[in-house]
Amino acid sequence: MSKVLVVYSGGLDSTALLYKCISEFDEVEAINFDYNSKHNASERKAAQKICDLEGIKLTEVNMPFINELFKSDLLQSGGDIPEGHYAEDNMKSTVVPFRNGIMLSIASGYAESIDADTIAIANHFGDRAVYPDCRQEFVQPMIGAILEGTGGKVRLISPFVGLTKAQIVEVGCSHGAPLELSWSCYNGGDRPCLKCSTCAERTEAFLLNNLQDPSLSSEEWEKAINIWKKYS
Amino acid sequence: MSKVLVVYSGGLDSTALLYKCISEFDEVEAINFDYNSKHNASERKAAQKICDLEGIKLTEVNMPFINELFKSDLLQSGGDIPEGHYAEDNMKSTVVPFRNGIMLSIASGYAESIDADTIAIANHFGDRAVYPDCRQEFVQPMIGAILEGTGGKVRLISPFVGLTKAQIVEVGCSHGAPLELSWSCYNGGDRPCLKCSTCAERTEAFLLNNLQDPSLSSEEWEKAINIWKKYS
Repeated sequence: MSKVLVVYSGGLDSTALLYKCISEFDEVEAINFDYNSKHNASERKAAQKICDLEGIKLTEVNMPFINELFKSDLLQSGGDIPEGHYAEDNMKSTVVPFRNGIMLSIASGYAESIDADTIAIANHFGDRAVYPDCRQEFVQPMIGAILEGTGGKVRLISPFVGLTKAQIVEVGCSHGAPLELSWSCYNGGDRPCLKCSTCAERTEAFLLNNLQDPSLSSEEWEKAINIWKKYS
Repeated sequence: MSKVLVVYSGGLDSTALLYKCISEFDEVEAINFDYNSKHNASERKAAQKICDLEGIKLTEVNMPFINELFKSDLLQSGGDIPEGHYAEDNMKSTVVPFRNGIMLSIASGYAESIDADTIAIANHFGDRAVYPDCRQEFVQPMIGAILEGTGGKVRLISPFVGLTKAQIVEVGCSHGAPLELSWSCYNGGDRPCLKCSTCAERTEAFLLNNLQDPSLSSEEWEKAINIWKKYS
């Protein structure tokens, strides 16, 4: 029997991954990390709602030390989230140092404790320019470190490492993922700001699929497209 | 200028490493992880005392999720610590899954935040049979994952990976490490129990150097030798 633990934020990418895993593994659990980013609370609400929908156990891990010790504008202790296009120059300040390495390591230890043979993460090609720990060059040795460090018990997969966000939307739709419930905006809050780079990136991903973002009202979608046009 | 962040428990191995680093780097900081093991409090007291002695900044990171979620007899939530020789059969229950991977990942992110170019860990040859995340086969890919995942900013070193504990005692002494202040016993408490496998291993390491363990009274040392003889 195969059992996977999905690193699950409640965002678009990891929601698509969760549903891909539901169709490919016998058993699925999810793990969510709260590192006091500005958008953790909004993401977590989405994650819980979607897991409840599928009867999937979601384990939450608090990592207050990241907000206390690390420097990043993505954190509550950091500066403002930059607006505009999802490009290297204005996004570097949102890097949380080695975030994926930390989440994957904790997930590996927990996976071993619950006898999950696989952990899955939704890092993707679109993130590679800005976030070094989203790249294939990071994932490849991490696969080896996790396999060796757990005595051969846990295998890491990152099936989206070569995909764009638009392709992830396609995968999500093909597996029936409720993308309308997922949360992306870096600013948190009740509704997406539509202005931050991750909102712009999400808009583009749906546009390239000739779809309207199902999480937005028609009015919000119009606004999102106009902002995206301005920045691209 | 070189700056190193040492993963520092306050135990014998990492105390030797700390002093080796003091002599080899321009700047040294230390990071201590509390994962609610039975001996964390005793180790931490030793770590703080030794860092104070050298004016080294010691940062403490709490990881309560490990005790809450992981299974291991080393944890307060686990069963009794096994007695006897430090061998595979009776020590497996003390493995905290992927512990070193987790500590190294958090240390990597913190190192990037404080502009340390190197992180150092004291995993050694004697631990390799029982703890998979102490082996060279784990360290090697982890070096790559950390280097790539921090965008080339942080390098991992583990200079004791091929050394026995006896050789580490020798290194520690040659760098003037106050090994009498370090703590090893897995059971915590005010004085070492002398019965657990890590007490036996420590006794052996000093014996092989024709030294008395400087942390013990003459009476305790006699007792430690007798227990060690019984088990080996």
